[in-house]
Amino acid sequence: MIEPDFDKGAGLLPAVVQDSHSGDVLMLAYMNRDAWLKTLETGLATFWSRSRNALWIKGETSGHLQMVREIMIDCDADAILLKVEQRGGAACHTGYASCFYRRLDRGFVEVVGRKIFDPEDVYRK
Amino acid sequence: MIEPDFDKGAGLLPAVVQDSHSGDVLMLAYMNRDAWLKTLETGLATFWSRSRNALWIKGETSGHLQMVREIMIDCDADAILLKVEQRGGAACHTGYASCFYRRLDRGFVEVVGRKIFDPEDVYRK
Repeated sequence: MIEPDFDKGAGLLPAVVQDSHSGDVLMLAYMNRDAWLKTLETGLATFWSRSRNALWIKGETSGHLQMVREIMIDCDADAILLKVEQRGGAACHTGYASCFYRRLDRGFVEVVGRKIFDPEDVYRK
Repeated sequence: MIEPDFDKGAGLLPAVVQDSHSGDVLMLAYMNRDAWLKTLETGLATFWSRSRNALWIKGETSGHLQMVREIMIDCDADAILLKVEQRGGAACHTGYASCFYRRLDRGFVEVVGRKIFDPEDVYRK
């Protein structure tokens, strides 16, 4: 059984999340070994939240879960690629389909992403 | 002029490289501010090599340069996405088109990537 080399990232490795249908890169998050094992066990993309210092099942609050369809590992075993089916059509907490919704062009920022939801409707107090 | 928040990653942020034609995720590397500025200046994907502690123009040795077509920044400004035209058709030093050439399936590894070149031909002594 091969697994990513978490020691290389001092316990945390970057995981790229790609939409299995469109091929769009949706987000980048971090996994520790617990998040990795939880992802394998549940089939739901699960990360380690560096801000909350806790396991984070992506979409647990918003309902925008990520069903993992494929897991790839890179040549050095220190980066992970998840191909997922994105529930609700949006990965970003801002409501955009992808967290990478801003393009930089000669120092200017252009918003090119598709806005799917209004965060105020989804993350109610 | 917006730029990634390199402080968030203690000076180094992950950069996902995606093929601008196929949409395949080719690799993940790291950028510091120098690598970022060099990438903007030259249009060639340039990273910070953590193993060599040096700026690293991707493909400088192999000729497999990455011409940057689009630069995206994520919601938290702590991850970068480069959409590139991959010279020579391969991003990985192992000769595969993508560094993510291995798929994990129930604990087993399947090589699913396309091998483009033999590293021994490219990285001659």
